[in-house]
Amino acid sequence: MEPPYLLFLGDVADQLAAKTASGILDWRPERCFGQLRLPGCRADLGIPDRTVAEAREAGVRTFVVGVANSGGVLAEGWIDSILEAIEAGLEVASGLHTRLGDVPRIAAAAAERGVTLHDIRHPDRRFSTGTGQRRSGRRLLTVGTDCSCGKMYTALAIEREMKSRGMKATFRATGQTGILIAGEGVAVDAVVADFISGAVEWLAPDNEPDHWDVIEGQGSLFHPAFAGVSLGLLHGAQADALVLCHEPTRRHMRGLPHQPLPEIEECLDFNLRAARLTNPEARFVGISLNGAALCAAEREALFADLAERTGLPVVDPFVTGVGAILDALS
Amino acid sequence: MEPPYLLFLGDVADQLAAKTASGILDWRPERCFGQLRLPGCRADLGIPDRTVAEAREAGVRTFVVGVANSGGVLAEGWIDSILEAIEAGLEVASGLHTRLGDVPRIAAAAAERGVTLHDIRHPDRRFSTGTGQRRSGRRLLTVGTDCSCGKMYTALAIEREMKSRGMKATFRATGQTGILIAGEGVAVDAVVADFISGAVEWLAPDNEPDHWDVIEGQGSLFHPAFAGVSLGLLHGAQADALVLCHEPTRRHMRGLPHQPLPEIEECLDFNLRAARLTNPEARFVGISLNGAALCAAEREALFADLAERTGLPVVDPFVTGVGAILDALS
Repeated sequence: MEPPYLLFLGDVADQLAAKTASGILDWRPERCFGQLRLPGCRADLGIPDRTVAEAREAGVRTFVVGVANSGGVLAEGWIDSILEAIEAGLEVASGLHTRLGDVPRIAAAAAERGVTLHDIRHPDRRFSTGTGQRRSGRRLLTVGTDCSCGKMYTALAIEREMKSRGMKATFRATGQTGILIAGEGVAVDAVVADFISGAVEWLAPDNEPDHWDVIEGQGSLFHPAFAGVSLGLLHGAQADALVLCHEPTRRHMRGLPHQPLPEIEECLDFNLRAARLTNPEARFVGISLNGAALCAAEREALFADLAERTGLPVVDPFVTGVGAILDALS
Repeated sequence: MEPPYLLFLGDVADQLAAKTASGILDWRPERCFGQLRLPGCRADLGIPDRTVAEAREAGVRTFVVGVANSGGVLAEGWIDSILEAIEAGLEVASGLHTRLGDVPRIAAAAAERGVTLHDIRHPDRRFSTGTGQRRSGRRLLTVGTDCSCGKMYTALAIEREMKSRGMKATFRATGQTGILIAGEGVAVDAVVADFISGAVEWLAPDNEPDHWDVIEGQGSLFHPAFAGVSLGLLHGAQADALVLCHEPTRRHMRGLPHQPLPEIEECLDFNLRAARLTNPEARFVGISLNGAALCAAEREALFADLAERTGLPVVDPFVTGVGAILDALS
């Protein structure tokens, strides 16, 4: 997707429903020209409200449907805005389950205007099955005790820190928000099961010996719904370095009140054993906590405890930065 | 798919290319009315050659494309036979990647004649994501050191032995040949990655307390291409009993000369740890060897060695039967 972007929030009911747009704004603010909100919208990114006409005038290239509603459905009331963007010659990107091209009015308008539609959750190519063949270049993968515990934010923070240190690094997106931030990637949870690791091998191919692919993890080996995705991603990533992400106030696996979280040590060990199938040199280089819900004293006690138990650097990207993890890489 | 079947072998070049048909014949001979071979066909199931007209006369309900060629492609030269079957009012079933319904002449003929096409490799429904919630009834899953090492044959042999002992048992097919044998099932390797375990939860639902679902495994946790499928299947199966399948003459993972096979003990331990996420009571109840390539002395030495190392009953379904595994269940 070509920047700059106009971030469309529709008429979503709360800030959380705009988390795709806010993820883009957090990590790629220079690409965000403004937000477009419909009457009734209860989200606000804190950037200027802009019309499609203003966006076109300013050279905006892509209209991004920046919402993540439950079910991934494209609301009927948003279609006119999308058509207006197409009429203005903007490309349209969406991470919803509903394909833009499956809405006849949108498909027809895009065809007539010659505008590209980016249904980024759906892979636009076929993949090969994985091979596990060693590839050149270096790779770091974020893995998690659970879903939604900071794997994308940690990977993006590591890519940024690597670049600030003059290292060669590329964030590799594996989920819809990551793809909209990076402008490319593969939503591995939407790939046909036989091709999970093959898709990741394609996503993070051979590279220069001192180049790091920083690959966004998905799910958790301990999540009963998504562990297959996590394992295929781990094997395909062939990571040299692993970072465990953890949300310390979580009391059960996301969405599953009956399912306890794994112990940190168990999670480290199981991920490492699995990772070594395709990279015998794989090792953990740090733990990344999402400590937003903790007070400073709690956070410090937890950091000290985890560091002592695991011998790994423990960071919170938003509090400490991720420098300690990069120090452990060399 | 409704029996009886007419097994179509096309003009395949060797016996192995007809392995889907021979699997059906091995396990469901009572459903097989005959084979239909085109000129040049080098496979022979050893059952009568029959025409479509003869099949219709005899009450055959389904024309089964019983080939498993590389790439899963529907050959142009087979279309006329399929059209002839449709004209005769037979349903058509295929496990190829090419969908029958994607061939315009086939789709048109089926629509006109009101005949159902079964593209059994492609799921015909949407699944939910898995939950890991405990289900009633009992489950046995075959897992493997590698692909194609006897998981389907072992599961079918166990179902048969259970039934012969008067136990309640249902074979649950997870691959195309298994589906054609069972007449139903889900090809889990063709499910979208997010829904692997959810699809298996759907396939083996709540059941009577003394009923066994005998679930066909796929791939291996140690295969770099397919481990994600295997892990989602393991979690979704929620197996009480696991059987490890192994082909002892295999020198490397199937299709990957650089990838060694796992040690038996490592494979047992890793599968068990993973299985216990959704069933803390999971345990191995046996090892099933595909010893066709071994002489009797080799086989006996291997059986004794594995039994001593693991403490598990070791069987070869075609030599010893699987009774020792059932004995270990109780």
